[in-house]
Amino acid sequence: MLGRPRRVALLAEQCFHPRDAKTAVGILRYRAPEVAAVIDSTRAGSTAQQCVGCGGAVPVVGDLDAAVRAGADSLLLGIAPQGGGLPEQWRDVVRRALELGLDVISGLHVFLGDDPELARVAGAHGALLLDVRRPPAERPIAARRAAALEALVVLTVGSDCNVGKMTAALELERELRARGRRVAFVATGQTGIMIADHGVAIDAVAADFAAGVIERLVLEAARRADIVLVEGQGALHHPGYSGVALSLLHGACPAALVLCHWEGRTELRMAEGEVFPMPPLREVRAAAEQAAAWVRPAATVAAALNTVDLEEPAAREACARRARELGVPAGDPVRFGAGPLADALVEARERLRPGGSGRGSRPRGRRRGSAPAAKESP
Amino acid sequence: MLGRPRRVALLAEQCFHPRDAKTAVGILRYRAPEVAAVIDSTRAGSTAQQCVGCGGAVPVVGDLDAAVRAGADSLLLGIAPQGGGLPEQWRDVVRRALELGLDVISGLHVFLGDDPELARVAGAHGALLLDVRRPPAERPIAARRAAALEALVVLTVGSDCNVGKMTAALELERELRARGRRVAFVATGQTGIMIADHGVAIDAVAADFAAGVIERLVLEAARRADIVLVEGQGALHHPGYSGVALSLLHGACPAALVLCHWEGRTELRMAEGEVFPMPPLREVRAAAEQAAAWVRPAATVAAALNTVDLEEPAAREACARRARELGVPAGDPVRFGAGPLADALVEARERLRPGGSGRGSRPRGRRRGSAPAAKESP
Repeated sequence: MLGRPRRVALLAEQCFHPRDAKTAVGILRYRAPEVAAVIDSTRAGSTAQQCVGCGGAVPVVGDLDAAVRAGADSLLLGIAPQGGGLPEQWRDVVRRALELGLDVISGLHVFLGDDPELARVAGAHGALLLDVRRPPAERPIAARRAAALEALVVLTVGSDCNVGKMTAALELERELRARGRRVAFVATGQTGIMIADHGVAIDAVAADFAAGVIERLVLEAARRADIVLVEGQGALHHPGYSGVALSLLHGACPAALVLCHWEGRTELRMAEGEVFPMPPLREVRAAAEQAAAWVRPAATVAAALNTVDLEEPAAREACARRARELGVPAGDPVRFGAGPLADALVEARERLRPGGSGRGSRPRGRRRGSAPAAKESP
Repeated sequence: MLGRPRRVALLAEQCFHPRDAKTAVGILRYRAPEVAAVIDSTRAGSTAQQCVGCGGAVPVVGDLDAAVRAGADSLLLGIAPQGGGLPEQWRDVVRRALELGLDVISGLHVFLGDDPELARVAGAHGALLLDVRRPPAERPIAARRAAALEALVVLTVGSDCNVGKMTAALELERELRARGRRVAFVATGQTGIMIADHGVAIDAVAADFAAGVIERLVLEAARRADIVLVEGQGALHHPGYSGVALSLLHGACPAALVLCHWEGRTELRMAEGEVFPMPPLREVRAAAEQAAAWVRPAATVAAALNTVDLEEPAAREACARRARELGVPAGDPVRFGAGPLADALVEARERLRPGGSGRGSRPRGRRRGSAPAAKESP
């Protein structure tokens, strides 16, 4: 992981629950063999599976020293608190890890490598501070270049933050790869980067270059794939994160969207004390398609639902209801498999490919000197 | 300007034209008394007025030394190149200015203060490197707080970058202030900050916090104003800058929009070699109002046109045609005065104020514990 084989300790002190430890759960779901232990003194003695429903027998331990005894050679901060700072109580753990020679992997907005004390301790003990959210030095401006790709670009869009956009893209990647498809996953957030060992945390890029950075990642990924799955971020209806969501949409220029939603959630996740009702899912879909069309039209081809809050019969019924409501395949890729959603992407790949009849295939812009663009179909 | 009285030299070498030297023209239009000279060796001997149509008798000189002889005590970089870097040929001028003890004011994306050589030279000569685009240290997340303000928040939105969004807001500020109104201008770009001595360059803020930073600026401005004029940035149809435009819309939560357009422009400004047709202005307006409604509905109340490419009769005809097309007052505030547009804002202030009948006045979200929000009117 991130440059060398690792056995990580996932720091999730006092928050190792499915809802709170988003990064930890993501790592456990996709890279469990590299996890030596999870640190949460309030749940020590149990397994990851017991606490968050994935990660199998990975032990939960009470402190860093126990994690090291379990074989950890790196410490990974398993949370992403709103605002992005380093919780004060975790600073001691980070310092102690560095003193023991462990690399520390962080997805926080505040860069540990820029903290003079931590940088000094790391240097003194030959340990690395790996800030996966640190943006690239380049300052590219997006110019709709990804719209010209022959690969099918797919973006997961959502009704809110933290509804399963990364997970839907990763499950689709796994399913399509198992079918022998040439597929690539483009990570755009800290957890996705840790899982994929590559990518950019779009939300930490200066706003002018957020779309341009994504455009570059998509162009690179398309060199090795026929289907490029881009991890979505934010939500167009979320006042804090809508700019990130739109930068992704206009940087990646997807032809196909996978609409993601947490069944049962009725309010957007806001800062404490703020309440903002979530619009109906058909409005979320309409907004995404409207916004896409400002630069490059996109069609919603599937819906990925997180049904963890529902019993199984109710979950199956929710998927069927969403499929009827939206007119596209709908399912929970974690619970019921990504097969039906992958079928929809394969079908879209045929329908929307250049020369096909789909509406997403014709770029409106063009390069100066090339033949005039065909007239847009309405 | 920026901390102390100044006499600035505006560096616009080889680009002192109305279209190329956007920052220089802005400073000359609003703070000409503080400009000692403009540096452009290709136009030395003329006046600012002759070159760019504003700035009166401010002399254009051939080099930095001539600007210092004209009284300059600071150097201001008068361009904003795409990508934000320091053109190599300007580095020598910046170094020379620092050696002469002049502060250097920059709106570039690359921060001069982070350049080891320039920082060393500045320190050795007691000069300051003022990077107005450097983002604040805070990491606020927007949560629609500006929607609850009693002040009328107005955002200038546009069909493209560089069409006159800052200028429209500044002309409206001047007109409303002359009428005795309590009005505030919120600068969101490098030129606006230099003119207003305050603000944040939204495009340089990490994408997650762009809306939150604007929200804070608007809340602050509303403490001293009944009408808050927010400088728009980017364009929702521009693939590179749409995220910035949406962050502004959802951070500022305006009730009123002023639609800005450069008459005669038919393509969006893209990187060299890229062409992207501009949509009809009614589509630009519809997109802005749709996107606003995802968080807080807003109404377009006026159109500010840049008619510099047209002869006067054609310019007046264009304004009249836009007013008919859009159903709101339309004018060129620089050429024909901001009066009619200011009238529209004053009228909107009455119509949209809390308790009024306007659709922009009722927040959809609410604070937990407050009375239930009234049902949205359709």
